[in-house]
Amino acid sequence: MTTISPIRWHDGTLALLDQRFLPEKQQDYLCETLEHAAQAIADLVVRGAPAIGITAAYAVCLGYRQSMADSTYDLNAGLDKLANARPTAVNLAWAVAQQREIIQSGKGDIADQLLQNARRIHQQDIDNNQVMGSLGAELISADSIVLTHCNAGALATGGYGTALGVIRSAWAAGKLKRVYASETRPWLQGLRLTAWELAHSDIPVSVIVEGAASALLGQKGVDWIIVGSDRICANGDVINKIGTCNLAVLARYYGVKFMVVAPTSTIDMTLQSGDEVEIESRAESEILAERYADEQRVHAWNPVFDVTPAGLVDAIVTESGVVLQPDREKMTALMAACSA
Amino acid sequence: MTTISPIRWHDGTLALLDQRFLPEKQQDYLCETLEHAAQAIADLVVRGAPAIGITAAYAVCLGYRQSMADSTYDLNAGLDKLANARPTAVNLAWAVAQQREIIQSGKGDIADQLLQNARRIHQQDIDNNQVMGSLGAELISADSIVLTHCNAGALATGGYGTALGVIRSAWAAGKLKRVYASETRPWLQGLRLTAWELAHSDIPVSVIVEGAASALLGQKGVDWIIVGSDRICANGDVINKIGTCNLAVLARYYGVKFMVVAPTSTIDMTLQSGDEVEIESRAESEILAERYADEQRVHAWNPVFDVTPAGLVDAIVTESGVVLQPDREKMTALMAACSA
Repeated sequence: MTTISPIRWHDGTLALLDQRFLPEKQQDYLCETLEHAAQAIADLVVRGAPAIGITAAYAVCLGYRQSMADSTYDLNAGLDKLANARPTAVNLAWAVAQQREIIQSGKGDIADQLLQNARRIHQQDIDNNQVMGSLGAELISADSIVLTHCNAGALATGGYGTALGVIRSAWAAGKLKRVYASETRPWLQGLRLTAWELAHSDIPVSVIVEGAASALLGQKGVDWIIVGSDRICANGDVINKIGTCNLAVLARYYGVKFMVVAPTSTIDMTLQSGDEVEIESRAESEILAERYADEQRVHAWNPVFDVTPAGLVDAIVTESGVVLQPDREKMTALMAACSA
Repeated sequence: MTTISPIRWHDGTLALLDQRFLPEKQQDYLCETLEHAAQAIADLVVRGAPAIGITAAYAVCLGYRQSMADSTYDLNAGLDKLANARPTAVNLAWAVAQQREIIQSGKGDIADQLLQNARRIHQQDIDNNQVMGSLGAELISADSIVLTHCNAGALATGGYGTALGVIRSAWAAGKLKRVYASETRPWLQGLRLTAWELAHSDIPVSVIVEGAASALLGQKGVDWIIVGSDRICANGDVINKIGTCNLAVLARYYGVKFMVVAPTSTIDMTLQSGDEVEIESRAESEILAERYADEQRVHAWNPVFDVTPAGLVDAIVTESGVVLQPDREKMTALMAACSA
């Protein structure tokens, strides 16, 4: 099954498949500097928590090279900027912190160690996705119908995908009757990215507007809603793309099961619950576009993520195992087991 | 308070404010024939159940004139075509049936009677909206925050609006702290029409993507969700724009109240429940746009309406009174009272 390589390091340049132009155009965005890469993250050239983490790891390689070429370059400021390019995904801070440790160790060929570590993070992510794909697919019965939200696919990760990894694995095992994708406003990641990626992997998909979720769950016999996550709290609360919690509430109402697929690097045990998470709000213009530019009475409220309470989640699938009906105790046990 | 006149009859021509181009352009679509008007309804030049009914009533005036000018013109076929221009709104069939009765009566100046009846339906709709506005506003407490979906405003009616009529009245009474509008994919009636119409009436509004409804209800203290309806069944089930039922399920989850505002002409006592309603599906291209034209593996499921079960509705507001916690018995009593 062909998947996509959204992040490529080649000859000292970081090439990102520019997700703003999909599916119409497949065009790379080339990063020569840490700042290019930070901008790419801020501008959604690359998005999805794992993909942002991997991009940041390579971006530190660029920044370190800049600091070697120009003694006035402030690498620490660059790393801070990079770590704050977007606020919500824990993987971003996690990847930058790992690379910062290598720089601070000051031992051996730092440039080489940074690159090896970025490659390791990248490959580890793909490997994790394949493990999660298998574990998640095991939860799915034959002849199932699934709905996914946003894009938690190869494009959001190092490759293969988290939620879409599970869908790929279940599809390959012949378990899926039909895959639905919600279009995911305002950026339409479901329509532009998930549909493109599934078609690319020869998996048929039907797109719905988010408003059709209730009708879909009520009429079409959906078995699972499967999503990724940008951050998971110690109590199992899930931060993911705006609209995720809508689907979780609907899933509970219609008796549909709700699965979250994310590597353990997404789990942030320092956050007691979703109440503690800073939710990124983006520009009103993402919703209003060019309309109402001179109209002071029309505004938009544009939070990018929402918090799905653990009580609405049936399964959290990680590379270290599956947590059913997540709560603080089970999340703690999972994290203890995987750091042991 | 200024509202908009989306439907105007002037000198034998029917002028419709073309809602496909709002808010960017205010441009009329002129109907010289019944077929022009039927096409306008099919193409969403005019939309909203009451507005479709009024447009159809005037369209019959055009058709009758055609039949007088050209003896080969098949008026009955024209009326059938008009009545089927869109399948879901009961007001369309209701208005055409009324006009057909006048034609079949064969007495007096039919052209004049048709026009007078169209004008009466139109004015009655505006009067009804103002009554509903007052009745609905009485249910709303001071300092309330409301969310509306799609456009059930002046643009969807003869003027003033159903759901937006209640919001206008509550705003004028100083009861509203804030008004939110969900953008309503795929046609963006909330973003394009409701926001424009509210701003035009000097009522500030914040637009959200539909995915943000859960976050909004959870965080912003919304008191009421207020929507219109295209058809209400004998048991109180409500057919309205796709996404309405999502909001009703979320409202119940978050303890937010849910109000439906519609004239009694929207109530179809021949339908026992929402299960009996034919739901219109529109073209996949409304969701996919120009994307995936050659891609056989990407489809879209595009139902235009959904069914909100009566059990999720707190109030149905009509010009003949308010039904709280609607059920078959209460709906029957309402309709008996208003036909008595």
